[in-house]
Amino acid sequence: MEEAVGAIFSQGQRSIKIPVPVYIRASASIAGTKEGQGPFGDQFDVVGKDDRFGCETWEEAESTLQKEALALAIGKSGISKEEIRYLLAGDLLGQSIASTFGLGSFQIPLVGMYGACSTCGLAISMATVMIAGGMAEHAACVTSSHFASAEKEFRYPLGYGNQRPLSASWTVTGSGAFILSSVKSENDRAMIDGLTIGKIVDFGLKDSMNMGACMAPAACDTIYQHLTDFGRSPSDYDRIITGDLGSVGQKALWDMMREKGMDISKVHMDCGMEIYDRSQDAHAGGSGCGCCAVVLSAYILKQLEEGKWKRVLFVPTGALLSKTSFNEGQSIPGIAHGVELVSCK
Amino acid sequence: MEEAVGAIFSQGQRSIKIPVPVYIRASASIAGTKEGQGPFGDQFDVVGKDDRFGCETWEEAESTLQKEALALAIGKSGISKEEIRYLLAGDLLGQSIASTFGLGSFQIPLVGMYGACSTCGLAISMATVMIAGGMAEHAACVTSSHFASAEKEFRYPLGYGNQRPLSASWTVTGSGAFILSSVKSENDRAMIDGLTIGKIVDFGLKDSMNMGACMAPAACDTIYQHLTDFGRSPSDYDRIITGDLGSVGQKALWDMMREKGMDISKVHMDCGMEIYDRSQDAHAGGSGCGCCAVVLSAYILKQLEEGKWKRVLFVPTGALLSKTSFNEGQSIPGIAHGVELVSCK
Repeated sequence: MEEAVGAIFSQGQRSIKIPVPVYIRASASIAGTKEGQGPFGDQFDVVGKDDRFGCETWEEAESTLQKEALALAIGKSGISKEEIRYLLAGDLLGQSIASTFGLGSFQIPLVGMYGACSTCGLAISMATVMIAGGMAEHAACVTSSHFASAEKEFRYPLGYGNQRPLSASWTVTGSGAFILSSVKSENDRAMIDGLTIGKIVDFGLKDSMNMGACMAPAACDTIYQHLTDFGRSPSDYDRIITGDLGSVGQKALWDMMREKGMDISKVHMDCGMEIYDRSQDAHAGGSGCGCCAVVLSAYILKQLEEGKWKRVLFVPTGALLSKTSFNEGQSIPGIAHGVELVSCK
Repeated sequence: MEEAVGAIFSQGQRSIKIPVPVYIRASASIAGTKEGQGPFGDQFDVVGKDDRFGCETWEEAESTLQKEALALAIGKSGISKEEIRYLLAGDLLGQSIASTFGLGSFQIPLVGMYGACSTCGLAISMATVMIAGGMAEHAACVTSSHFASAEKEFRYPLGYGNQRPLSASWTVTGSGAFILSSVKSENDRAMIDGLTIGKIVDFGLKDSMNMGACMAPAACDTIYQHLTDFGRSPSDYDRIITGDLGSVGQKALWDMMREKGMDISKVHMDCGMEIYDRSQDAHAGGSGCGCCAVVLSAYILKQLEEGKWKRVLFVPTGALLSKTSFNEGQSIPGIAHGVELVSCK
């Protein structure tokens, strides 16, 4: 019998301490016009001139985001497409069609992932598992979202001109791609040191115009579990970064963490709250599979790369609903996957 | 620098030879009424009295299938719910809601997977990767489909009474759950020896009433890659088993394999062609995430368990489309993930 290796914690814990180094060799971000006008506008690799990206449909536009992001990231990595053993990808659309039609032409074996807006964390986690477990030398992760395709998928087609409450978030048009490798290089953006795969957390909330509140309990669960498993406190991290809780969800998360005896307010950042300026009228903030992905590539990894931050817990958050489940009166559970990133400096 | 371990083949190959034994400790299957009347009817663990399984909606019924299948499989495994480190699951519905609402109550960290009808193979593959890589001791995999929820999701609500051509398949109502472990027991159903993660293969076909033809090229690609990577011929396997090609897809697969110089006709079996009797008027055969999952649990693993078969290549096949992609005139690419199963006898 093989003994379980060091990656396993004891029962009740659920994090993975990565047993061998896994590096983020390169990444790329591509974003839409509104995102381009926001605070990270000049840090994205590409900003579209319009949100159709030369396509006939919003879904094709989103596929194009994935294709361009991955092509850019591969180009930067110095690793050939043929050397990338697996591609882990997903998006918010039914049956993940943005990934299907965006990534088919790369002809890399595809592991399709679904974790709603947390998919970026899940894809990076599973790519890390594959590399750390010796199943791949290099792997790529891609996720995306598009404001117009998401509105059509989850709420109303844009033509309806529906109004949105202030608790609603704005789905980010963008895609981030990441090339992970077991091989150290001169230019690695960061290392992955730990993973905490999330559970479904359902507080029974049902308001799809307030997804931050739906996801906050899941973020709390994963962050608390991560800190407990590793025996750390919030101050051990330069930042604890959620995906897209927005302003309403952030408040709920801080309160829930305080109830567990942990104050994360000094180190917490939410990608959704940072991606738009207040003047951009995005209400609670940005959301979507693309939100944390483009912020990770354009901003978070930059801080780690430059050594400004040493250790970050990146926690993409997902709201688990579909148009059907919502219309049938189901709740909106949340899930959040934690990836611990450390600077190579 | 860590060297890549034995799981890696050289470039151009893409299979994984599992470096440490991973066992299928237990499994369970639950199926609908039509499936219960078919050839495997008395081999499923549970057959529903009606296809609503006591629920108000088809989607909830499908969630119930997953919940019951997983509870049964855990019960048989002798492993407690708390010891199961990860749950890998998915289904065909938009945003995988059958899994969300079926599995939340187990409170096991969830890796959401999407591979259309190939998801069962993908989930088992990634659970195997996690266990073989030392990231988990025990993991569970669940997939499902439901005829009525799938018709609503992809084609027409049942009330429309639409007619179906003979090339159409019938989505299986059922769910299969599998408990995988690194720990050998007296009652393991089979061992997992190799994996071949599939690529997206797009021949440009667009007929959602002939998904067997859409998926056959992907099945061919994965089977050919698997046999080539491992240096084997079809006769080295007691069976090469596709998920849901149906009669039309089978013919296409055999022809394509012959063009590559391999005749699999003597060992090929398709779960979709076996799950219904010809008298049941299911046209090309069964399909869906649940089809190969229930056949694997009820029939394939039984043959391996009893030593009647020594080595099987299990290749669930998926058609990558959504209602939106279909209506927008996109093609229907296929994907197939190969899992090599060997008898413990």
